[in-house]
Amino acid sequence: MDLKSVIRTIPDYPKKGIMFRDITTLLTDARGFRRAVDELVQPLAGQKIDKVAGIEARGFILGGAIAHQLSVGFVPIRKKGKLPYKTIAESYELEYGVDEVEIHVDAVEKGDRILLVDDLIATGGTAGAAIKLLERAGGEVMLCSFVVDLPDLGGADKLRALGKKVTALVEYEGE
Amino acid sequence: MDLKSVIRTIPDYPKKGIMFRDITTLLTDARGFRRAVDELVQPLAGQKIDKVAGIEARGFILGGAIAHQLSVGFVPIRKKGKLPYKTIAESYELEYGVDEVEIHVDAVEKGDRILLVDDLIATGGTAGAAIKLLERAGGEVMLCSFVVDLPDLGGADKLRALGKKVTALVEYEGE
Repeated sequence: MDLKSVIRTIPDYPKKGIMFRDITTLLTDARGFRRAVDELVQPLAGQKIDKVAGIEARGFILGGAIAHQLSVGFVPIRKKGKLPYKTIAESYELEYGVDEVEIHVDAVEKGDRILLVDDLIATGGTAGAAIKLLERAGGEVMLCSFVVDLPDLGGADKLRALGKKVTALVEYEGE
Repeated sequence: MDLKSVIRTIPDYPKKGIMFRDITTLLTDARGFRRAVDELVQPLAGQKIDKVAGIEARGFILGGAIAHQLSVGFVPIRKKGKLPYKTIAESYELEYGVDEVEIHVDAVEKGDRILLVDDLIATGGTAGAAIKLLERAGGEVMLCSFVVDLPDLGGADKLRALGKKVTALVEYEGE
């Protein structure tokens, strides 16, 4: 099965000139969803993981499924102000301005081996901040898994330059 | 395992007098997460389901895991303006004002038998709108599963009055 066949492209969304890669069509397709989950964990090759961390909001769907498949706990990485308990935060740069991601202070235990999941990697700003956050909390990010990589934006290379293992199931060039 | 033992209560969040039931501690606990997923699907008792629909954002984590467990597709129910493709929307009343939930126009096929998932049911406003939306799209909601029910707020009874089967894993009274 070619995963690209179940990913929808929406031209000019959210603004003119952007080709938005919509994975909701993949999620709604039972075979596509299962295939994506299997492939996202494949580089672990049986290596033990303690937790899956998913980035709000589409990373929650894939990350929840993967945590279940691996029988481990799930850590939600949320936008600023969404978590109810004490948090630690990490900021990252946007095209205009900055944003922040947070986790609960007790979401990660020292030495936790973590799989980080999101639907897409572009410039890698959010994922880079998520890695810093999880490692400040005492965890070690063993693998970063994405359904879609936009390699021209350099995010995956940025994470690899931090010494991280990165996998992506499909790539779209020229973005 | 008592699921309440892994649900954290945060007093006076998001405002004074509210006891917030935080399921992130359940999700982070591997046994708690697996147990919750197993119990959330248990009332289906092997009955065939075509899709799992989860309500943004915590319903994505549980719903993703359940869709994976049942080997079916997942339908994200999102707040207004978050989905990239053509949507249908349904509004519901808040304490002050109204809000809207949306699904993509093609997320549900006619006759789809759907399991609706969220972390918590209070007044049932969001869940009620989600049911209307999924059924307007041609689906049939076979079961509504929640981790937490606040029965004093009447949401579960409201869904049952619509003829829906409802399950919740734990209840907190006096809210």
